[in-house]
Amino acid sequence: MLDFSIYRDQFVSAEMGKIWSEDNTVSSWLQVEQALAACQAEMGIIDPEVSEKLQSLKASDLDTACLQDDMALVGRPIVGLVKQLRAAVGTPQAASVHFGSTTQDIMDTAMVLQMHRGLLLVDAELDRLLSHIEQFGDAFGATEIIGRTNGQHAVEMTLGAKLDVWKSELKRRRDCLKDAAGRGLNVQCGGPVGDLRAFPADQGRQLKQSLAAALDLHVAEPHWQNARDGVGEIVAALGMLCGSLCKIAHNINLLSSSEIGELFEGYEAGKGSSSSMAHKRNQRGSEFMEAIARLGRQQSAAIQETNMHQHERSGGVWISEWLIVPDVFKYTSGALMWGNRLFSHLCVDTQRASAGVQQFRERVAPVKSNVGH
Amino acid sequence: MLDFSIYRDQFVSAEMGKIWSEDNTVSSWLQVEQALAACQAEMGIIDPEVSEKLQSLKASDLDTACLQDDMALVGRPIVGLVKQLRAAVGTPQAASVHFGSTTQDIMDTAMVLQMHRGLLLVDAELDRLLSHIEQFGDAFGATEIIGRTNGQHAVEMTLGAKLDVWKSELKRRRDCLKDAAGRGLNVQCGGPVGDLRAFPADQGRQLKQSLAAALDLHVAEPHWQNARDGVGEIVAALGMLCGSLCKIAHNINLLSSSEIGELFEGYEAGKGSSSSMAHKRNQRGSEFMEAIARLGRQQSAAIQETNMHQHERSGGVWISEWLIVPDVFKYTSGALMWGNRLFSHLCVDTQRASAGVQQFRERVAPVKSNVGH
Amino acid sequence: MLDFSIYRDQFVSAEMGKIWSEDNTVSSWLQVEQALAACQAEMGIIDPEVSEKLQSLKASDLDTACLQDDMALVGRPIVGLVKQLRAAVGTPQAASVHFGSTTQDIMDTAMVLQMHRGLLLVDAELDRLLSHIEQFGDAFGATEIIGRTNGQHAVEMTLGAKLDVWKSELKRRRDCLKDAAGRGLNVQCGGPVGDLRAFPADQGRQLKQSLAAALDLHVAEPHWQNARDGVGEIVAALGMLCGSLCKIAHNINLLSSSEIGELFEGYEAGKGSSSSMAHKRNQRGSEFMEAIARLGRQQSAAIQETNMHQHERSGGVWISEWLIVPDVFKYTSGALMWGNRLFSHLCVDTQRASAGVQQFRERVAPVKSNVGH
Amino acid sequence: MLDFSIYRDQFVSAEMGKIWSEDNTVSSWLQVEQALAACQAEMGIIDPEVSEKLQSLKASDLDTACLQDDMALVGRPIVGLVKQLRAAVGTPQAASVHFGSTTQDIMDTAMVLQMHRGLLLVDAELDRLLSHIEQFGDAFGATEIIGRTNGQHAVEMTLGAKLDVWKSELKRRRDCLKDAAGRGLNVQCGGPVGDLRAFPADQGRQLKQSLAAALDLHVAEPHWQNARDGVGEIVAALGMLCGSLCKIAHNINLLSSSEIGELFEGYEAGKGSSSSMAHKRNQRGSEFMEAIARLGRQQSAAIQETNMHQHERSGGVWISEWLIVPDVFKYTSGALMWGNRLFSHLCVDTQRASAGVQQFRERVAPVKSNVGH
Repeated sequence: MLDFSIYRDQFVSAEMGKIWSEDNTVSSWLQVEQALAACQAEMGIIDPEVSEKLQSLKASDLDTACLQDDMALVGRPIVGLVKQLRAAVGTPQAASVHFGSTTQDIMDTAMVLQMHRGLLLVDAELDRLLSHIEQFGDAFGATEIIGRTNGQHAVEMTLGAKLDVWKSELKRRRDCLKDAAGRGLNVQCGGPVGDLRAFPADQGRQLKQSLAAALDLHVAEPHWQNARDGVGEIVAALGMLCGSLCKIAHNINLLSSSEIGELFEGYEAGKGSSSSMAHKRNQRGSEFMEAIARLGRQQSAAIQETNMHQHERSGGVWISEWLIVPDVFKYTSGALMWGNRLFSHLCVDTQRASAGVQQFRERVAPVKSNVGH
Repeated sequence: MLDFSIYRDQFVSAEMGKIWSEDNTVSSWLQVEQALAACQAEMGIIDPEVSEKLQSLKASDLDTACLQDDMALVGRPIVGLVKQLRAAVGTPQAASVHFGSTTQDIMDTAMVLQMHRGLLLVDAELDRLLSHIEQFGDAFGATEIIGRTNGQHAVEMTLGAKLDVWKSELKRRRDCLKDAAGRGLNVQCGGPVGDLRAFPADQGRQLKQSLAAALDLHVAEPHWQNARDGVGEIVAALGMLCGSLCKIAHNINLLSSSEIGELFEGYEAGKGSSSSMAHKRNQRGSEFMEAIARLGRQQSAAIQETNMHQHERSGGVWISEWLIVPDVFKYTSGALMWGNRLFSHLCVDTQRASAGVQQFRERVAPVKSNVGH
Repeated sequence: MLDFSIYRDQFVSAEMGKIWSEDNTVSSWLQVEQALAACQAEMGIIDPEVSEKLQSLKASDLDTACLQDDMALVGRPIVGLVKQLRAAVGTPQAASVHFGSTTQDIMDTAMVLQMHRGLLLVDAELDRLLSHIEQFGDAFGATEIIGRTNGQHAVEMTLGAKLDVWKSELKRRRDCLKDAAGRGLNVQCGGPVGDLRAFPADQGRQLKQSLAAALDLHVAEPHWQNARDGVGEIVAALGMLCGSLCKIAHNINLLSSSEIGELFEGYEAGKGSSSSMAHKRNQRGSEFMEAIARLGRQQSAAIQETNMHQHERSGGVWISEWLIVPDVFKYTSGALMWGNRLFSHLCVDTQRASAGVQQFRERVAPVKSNVGH
Repeated sequence: MLDFSIYRDQFVSAEMGKIWSEDNTVSSWLQVEQALAACQAEMGIIDPEVSEKLQSLKASDLDTACLQDDMALVGRPIVGLVKQLRAAVGTPQAASVHFGSTTQDIMDTAMVLQMHRGLLLVDAELDRLLSHIEQFGDAFGATEIIGRTNGQHAVEMTLGAKLDVWKSELKRRRDCLKDAAGRGLNVQCGGPVGDLRAFPADQGRQLKQSLAAALDLHVAEPHWQNARDGVGEIVAALGMLCGSLCKIAHNINLLSSSEIGELFEGYEAGKGSSSSMAHKRNQRGSEFMEAIARLGRQQSAAIQETNMHQHERSGGVWISEWLIVPDVFKYTSGALMWGNRLFSHLCVDTQRASAGVQQFRERVAPVKSNVGH
């Protein structure tokens, strides 16, 4: 449903959609094969000419019908890709393409490249959101409102105090994402069982370092073919960010409810209208932000089970990961997109806020006089 | 990723993909508006001419760019749809389109229509799978194999005993789906807060009955706008079916492992080949079946939280449901598709099976002689 | 934490606590061994004297220190139990105790007995809750209130319409539990790999039927040692009931919030007081009901993964089930307990309700006059 | 079930059990009240005599029946505790106990104290496990074994390469826990809505700093009453550790299966015996480790939803957290305990390992000769 044209720009940001598109996925596989060849050429493992021929290829040069057929036959998309790359390079050097590598090396590294780009987007959007909240606080933070605990009026406080909690929470989530990225954005370069057995020991390790440097990724020793905790941690960190966004959205929606009405989304004719009730002004920003953030948080939970590889690799869990990772990135982007939309037109009804505080003071005063502290 | 052309027929069956496609989703909305008008015309609530004009419309007649713009503005897709339908009907009877209804009536009923079709597909594919297992049992059920508990050889048994457990489990899951369908495939027809307030009491109730009959759905009184347990139960029943399929697939994969090798997927040149190891024969059917079934089971868990509506309706949870339901149906279809593929070319290595039993007898005999029972 | 004396009667009903207590768990194991022996004696498989000796034993006769030591050594609690039972019966007939059975037969059947009792409790408490809602509706159902969708005032409706939705949802959940019980409350009686191999075919099947009849349980053919979907469905049905209870509780809490205040929990001095705010009247019934129901719903999700047995049985998932099942039953009992407490002292502030409706009419009137339907 | 005497030392380590016991929970509340008073006395906010009187109290001095009654009435345990502390201090200074604080301050800070101790235990046990794997690797790492991917023999590798992956994964999980602790182990000290309103601005902030220093905790500004992401991150980090432990355990169990048999748990008479099959040697260490680690991983998912506080605090989610947090710590301790037990008696069957490699070489040689790389 994420690809419905009718829902364009509603669930996934355009930029994040591109990162996880089919085009970019295939391009990322190609990019990894190219980088691998370039490193191997530079190290003298393969003929530089092979690498040069590879570098000029683009995803659009590939025969996608063949890729599809080979995928259906082999059950993995890389054998078909390599076949076409080898054909492009031609004999007798064809075997130098994908040399000493395995399907998972390519797919894992490509996914990490996509995750890396995705995290940069998330970081930028999160910074924008923090700025929006900051500006909103500058304008309205001093507003006195009622604090509410367990659904009941508690004591007066400022709107700014509430916003400060949201900001500090989002900053912790940002830091958590950075820590997760530091541990999880690792190149995969190990061959069949991950131990770089096709290469003399030093050469293998050096190749991995070079590839990581070329792609701006980290290295995890010895390998992480069957140790998906790094991927899991990044997905979990996104899920936790989504959890925070979901909470913030839900609270804005509550504060915009008919009975509270301290916040409201700025009006635009027809926005949030109802097919049956002309008087309604639905709060779409907070609502979509909440719904999509929830999906991100919920989906992220699925990743933890897919660390259950058996032996050196298990398709039965690995394949599940192919779908969970993109979806969590997409939902995170959608939640942030709505967060930025929402805060860019969020308003405070200062009259309702102060009327509420006033009413509270009148109602609570006689009770309070009986209290020791 | 489900829409990647490279992965066509790998994750979702073509028929299930169609049910949840954008075309069919919009068509289902249209179908509900048409059925509603037809029932209202028959009951004399609206002019029959309005209904007649509506019946001739197809999803392809709609201006999808407008639908997209209206969705972006309103935050729901039905206001835009109704606008176009009313324009097609023309004044002065435009208001008779969508009369007394609300967006959720249309979207919920349309989703239930799609679920209904999806469940028929699931049922048919599950029956096929049961037949496949039955035939497989007819051919190989008498094979003696080792029973294994906690990973250790236990005692001899027949392969048929194992297959019988799978069949009985799948039949229970089929019955569970039927019970869930009986409780959850309900028409939604209630207007703004679900109480059919636009109509005199008897007329409202009769309208709902007529609509249900016209669409071959059930009725839940008073309504289920904010009581999503019926949807949740269907999704849970699919998730449990997926859980069973995941277990069966995983076991077939285990029984096809190099060390056990009692089962194996029939050979086809290149099938399951490796990009790095020419001797390998990867077991793709069981692997994909496991991975996709796991996704179905995992995703189904998310639906339970989305029953948390506040008051008469909450977009913040409802919107999440729009994405979870199609995905679980799709994954279920994919798991069943692979199940049927797998069993249509699954083989038994009777030699390995009997060698295993023989070896067990020799190893265990001296120990067993010391046992009382 | 469920066993903290300070939290007595806060999270688990006393009756449900007893069902899943250590005493009753051991007693249930004993009960299954006794019933098995009684059936075998009646069928002439073992000497009736063995059964008679067993019937007189109670859990309190067992040496629990020995049970503990044997559990620590063996990793299962039944070997130690059988040792003591055999000692009690004495040679030469000791081997007739637990004849042809295996640990899982005893533990599974005992757990199903406990589930059966637990479901009867749940059913009774759910009926009580439905009566409470019924009575509450009789008293206050005609109250006019505002319907709210997406947090915004929608149109007027009656409180009764809201309550009717809750009742119909809870009745569906009750029916779902019955269906699940019908499929899942099965005796386990199959020996090492479930195929009753210790007995001639007809005798084995007849023994299972007798045991089921004796314990008032169903039979699933061929067996369900490694097919846990029946347990999973019961736990899922409880989880869905909890989901519904969580939603109802949350809505009552919202309707009791300072700003809405249409509902409130009847006053008792000190109830729901705050350690820092003397004016507060926290709504504890709805809050605890929500929190515990959520735990029940969340925990229930865990059961689906534990169907992933390998071969004829896997401790690695089975043991997880030992803990999930009791917890979900306990939380369900706690949520129902709070539901019954809550509805027995829930009040309607009819003045606030009608003031809200009045205010809505004044505010919406001018807007509404512009609307076609 | 975690408290069954029959299962003592099977699911929770004794030390972790103590941390989350009722005694230690109440003691931790008391410790926080005492530290708060000590800091306030030092700052001249309250009379030092109040603090001195408080410091001499122990949990065992409290009237637990009263605590229970007050909990049942108030719905929180701290009002009753404060009542008793105030009585112990006596008039006229009673009100100086718990001054400017609220229930959540005490319970949150106490829980963080328990989490802090729990994390130290986890860290120590994880270090022990890493040493065990290290030693195991020193002894057996050079053993040649078959690498297996997707259940099929891939290529030869060393056992050490497998162990190195486990170690690096566990070290990443340890680092992740440290990062999470750095963000989440925060003192809570803010009063009713978290803003320290009972104190002049500088004094409030200074009090919080002092309390944090006294309890060896961090400070999160402005507060985290309704921002539970720090707790959620710690629980998630434990869940991810459990996920890794679950995978390791499952793999050891697989490698100990009858067909592979490269690993086995050292023998002790009766260990892992079966109630029906005398020849069996069940692998209990890996099995329990897997089952308990799975519970830890699964339960940890529940915490993310409980960040959904409304306004300044919601009992409806907060109370759920009271139960999830201890359980995840307990299961983590149990999984680590079994990991250490397992590795302290894990053996390698070098004969089977080398026979497997030999067999592989013979089988694969003719295929391999046809391969280009």
